[in-house]
Amino acid sequence: MAKAIPSRSEDYSLWYNELVKKAGLAENSPVRGCMVIKPYGFAIWEKMQQTLDQMFKDTGHENAYFPLLIPKSFLSKEADHVEGFAKECAVVTHYRLKNDEGGKGVVVDPEARLEEELIIRPTSETVIWDSYKNWIQSYRDLPILVNQWANVMRWEMRTRLFLRTAEFLWQEGHTAHATKQEAIDETNQMLNVYATFAEEFMAMPVIKGVKTESERFAGAVDTYCIEAMMQDGKALQAGTSHFLGQNFAKAFDVKFATKEGKEELVWGTSWGVSTRLMGALIMAHSDDDGLVLPPKLAPIQVVIVPIYFKDEQLAQIEEVVNPLVSELKAKGISVKFDTRDTHKPGWKFAEYELKGVPVRLAIGPKDLEKGTVEVARRDTKEKSFEKIDGIVDHVSGLLEEIQSNIYNKAKNFREENTKSADTYDEFKELVEHGFVLAHWDGTAETEEKIKEETKATIRCIPLDQQKEEGKCIFTGKPSEGRVLFAKAY
Amino acid sequence: MAKAIPSRSEDYSLWYNELVKKAGLAENSPVRGCMVIKPYGFAIWEKMQQTLDQMFKDTGHENAYFPLLIPKSFLSKEADHVEGFAKECAVVTHYRLKNDEGGKGVVVDPEARLEEELIIRPTSETVIWDSYKNWIQSYRDLPILVNQWANVMRWEMRTRLFLRTAEFLWQEGHTAHATKQEAIDETNQMLNVYATFAEEFMAMPVIKGVKTESERFAGAVDTYCIEAMMQDGKALQAGTSHFLGQNFAKAFDVKFATKEGKEELVWGTSWGVSTRLMGALIMAHSDDDGLVLPPKLAPIQVVIVPIYFKDEQLAQIEEVVNPLVSELKAKGISVKFDTRDTHKPGWKFAEYELKGVPVRLAIGPKDLEKGTVEVARRDTKEKSFEKIDGIVDHVSGLLEEIQSNIYNKAKNFREENTKSADTYDEFKELVEHGFVLAHWDGTAETEEKIKEETKATIRCIPLDQQKEEGKCIFTGKPSEGRVLFAKAY
Repeated sequence: MAKAIPSRSEDYSLWYNELVKKAGLAENSPVRGCMVIKPYGFAIWEKMQQTLDQMFKDTGHENAYFPLLIPKSFLSKEADHVEGFAKECAVVTHYRLKNDEGGKGVVVDPEARLEEELIIRPTSETVIWDSYKNWIQSYRDLPILVNQWANVMRWEMRTRLFLRTAEFLWQEGHTAHATKQEAIDETNQMLNVYATFAEEFMAMPVIKGVKTESERFAGAVDTYCIEAMMQDGKALQAGTSHFLGQNFAKAFDVKFATKEGKEELVWGTSWGVSTRLMGALIMAHSDDDGLVLPPKLAPIQVVIVPIYFKDEQLAQIEEVVNPLVSELKAKGISVKFDTRDTHKPGWKFAEYELKGVPVRLAIGPKDLEKGTVEVARRDTKEKSFEKIDGIVDHVSGLLEEIQSNIYNKAKNFREENTKSADTYDEFKELVEHGFVLAHWDGTAETEEKIKEETKATIRCIPLDQQKEEGKCIFTGKPSEGRVLFAKAY
Repeated sequence: MAKAIPSRSEDYSLWYNELVKKAGLAENSPVRGCMVIKPYGFAIWEKMQQTLDQMFKDTGHENAYFPLLIPKSFLSKEADHVEGFAKECAVVTHYRLKNDEGGKGVVVDPEARLEEELIIRPTSETVIWDSYKNWIQSYRDLPILVNQWANVMRWEMRTRLFLRTAEFLWQEGHTAHATKQEAIDETNQMLNVYATFAEEFMAMPVIKGVKTESERFAGAVDTYCIEAMMQDGKALQAGTSHFLGQNFAKAFDVKFATKEGKEELVWGTSWGVSTRLMGALIMAHSDDDGLVLPPKLAPIQVVIVPIYFKDEQLAQIEEVVNPLVSELKAKGISVKFDTRDTHKPGWKFAEYELKGVPVRLAIGPKDLEKGTVEVARRDTKEKSFEKIDGIVDHVSGLLEEIQSNIYNKAKNFREENTKSADTYDEFKELVEHGFVLAHWDGTAETEEKIKEETKATIRCIPLDQQKEEGKCIFTGKPSEGRVLFAKAY
């Protein structure tokens, strides 16, 4: 079998693209910038969805669904918002096709032109706050804690599977509150939910922080984010939580009567993660042989491959393995027993390595004699022979160990590749390889110049930032603490 | 409290619309024909989704995701398909907005015109079979058993919440097979899955049948359906399963190498149910006081309302109710203990009746003394006092009883309102009130004429149709069995 994918050191970008395709996660569609998420990729996304959805519900949120299309005029109601999204909107102008009279086949019917053009939602603040206006009269109607799982569209010019696509799947939470503090608390709570999900389920350590003004969501007062390091040292923004202040309440005239009978504007938040997390998951852990999936998000946690020549041998193996499969399933472990005779064991080994199945068991006639099974873990590639007796507990413990090992590996990698820089020369050198903590004078102008010269951006002002007097690496002006710079996806 | 909704006998159509809005299920959006599904409505839809999704997975299907947008040219590749959908397509023509130089605000940027217009999917056969072409080379790649949960858009001129909306949510299964028989078996299997779901979960009896040619899905060889009777005697098509033959394989050139090395066209099916099921659920069971939900799909199965004047009394009630709530939850019963002091018990009773909560428990100081609780069931409105001791088992049994009672009631109603007609006069009279089984000569012409004159259509040729010699009620020509006529949603 030929090598499935190029190595990371050869070409990191090509490694990623080929891995996504070869592992059966996603592929490009005939529509520019849109992707097809294939069953194996979607199974991982479903696990993410289910986990996040439960976390949202546990924090009091309900799901709802708002329209795909947004009147063009809605977008203009919040000035920063339209500025941020107008350039990447897919626009619906007509609602009918017809047969061309000149025989050119099916054409757009010019008579079916919409009076007002409709935008495919790039995000739903506008259409949702337009609804909230009707939902909210008094303090009794607050808070509104709503989330929606949806597809959105941003017409990006340069796209990459999962990381940046014209259409992507996401969830967007939109909440409305009576007080500023409640909205700020919600913003923080959801940032923490995202961080917990990234670290405990994706096994991906993240840095929590707040964006600078120039990286803020269009229409937000403050944008909080989680940033993760990929294996090439670049940063990937894995989720954002926005404190919207009263901006959208103002734009859509959403007011409520307080307990005291006064009329006040409502406070808002919004927060989202998307199929981009799939890109993060892949790039954070995988290696030159394929995916490395954290057990908590792996659609198949354990695969069992029988090694046999004759059908009688398979029958004997099945006699031992079938009860094992039931036991594993009873423990909530997802297991696949691959008895296909269309592929050889070696092919299957490579296939499940490529697909990142955390634990592989192989069992043949000799193992049956000895009462053992070969156990291979995907993360370290270590193999061992274990007694069949007690293998279920062994596997269960191993899955936990793999989950924490993957996390620790990613965390160590990030720590090794996060440096402090005190001069601009030092900065330019270090930022080629990882995260750099450096002083910055707080101006958008300096931020922009550094970006132009180095392609690195301020990922965030970390929430655990230490107060430290220093000088901006670029202008030498005073600074009160280091911010996190990196090149980013 | 004013009566929330008009009665069914006053105005069935208005009853439905007001019920949908007042029960907090959905509302119209500012975009013509699109709806906002509100949290309570979405919670019911989520229960439907979860149940169906598990049924699809249990029958071997996997989820995937295909693009929202479809190139216009794809639609034209299958002749019947484009004929069926061209007239209701939302068309994306541009991908950017800009600030108008004349100061008219944000306008469509004429320079960002797409070379080929894109259609918002009305259904995804074309874009999916375009992918299948790349996924399928040999018999080893078959069958492909894929489903997707998605939003679709059909620009309907007359819309009604849930029943007919421009954008709706649905699932669409798309499978590919090596043989005709396998594809037919799949079509039947999924029809049965839908029928089981409708009857066992929605408590809604359905008639399984095959559509006549004129009601067939655009591009199918055969369309199977389930038809349910609403309380006004009209039919609602609740799900369809299509045997596509090799039509889409031909259109997209999808061939495979057989075991014997021959090249053959792939056989296909597609099948779907949508948020229309919400409309069916509402109209099948609800009454003049509001929703009546089958327990298996009710977001809240049991509500507990405390009756008290003083806070000490509430504390005493809570002491008894809190352990009850835990016990109910441990049994997998969803329960809400509504201790809000902003609303009176009477208001709460009306509210939960409106929302269709199957079982209501009310408990006050006198009940505490006697060790009883008032139990009210939503379907029959019956009330009784039951011992608190053993109430969990009582409620659990009651939920099962309600589920089957609702089903039986709907089934009896349908049986009472399904008649046979042997003359056209008889037919015209009967079809005003329910389903009519009548002979038909098998021509589209007769079907069309009957539709024009009576507004009734052939809902299906029932799968359990009896062979019976007869004469077409309209033309008197010979017929071999009765078909099902009704007015329909």
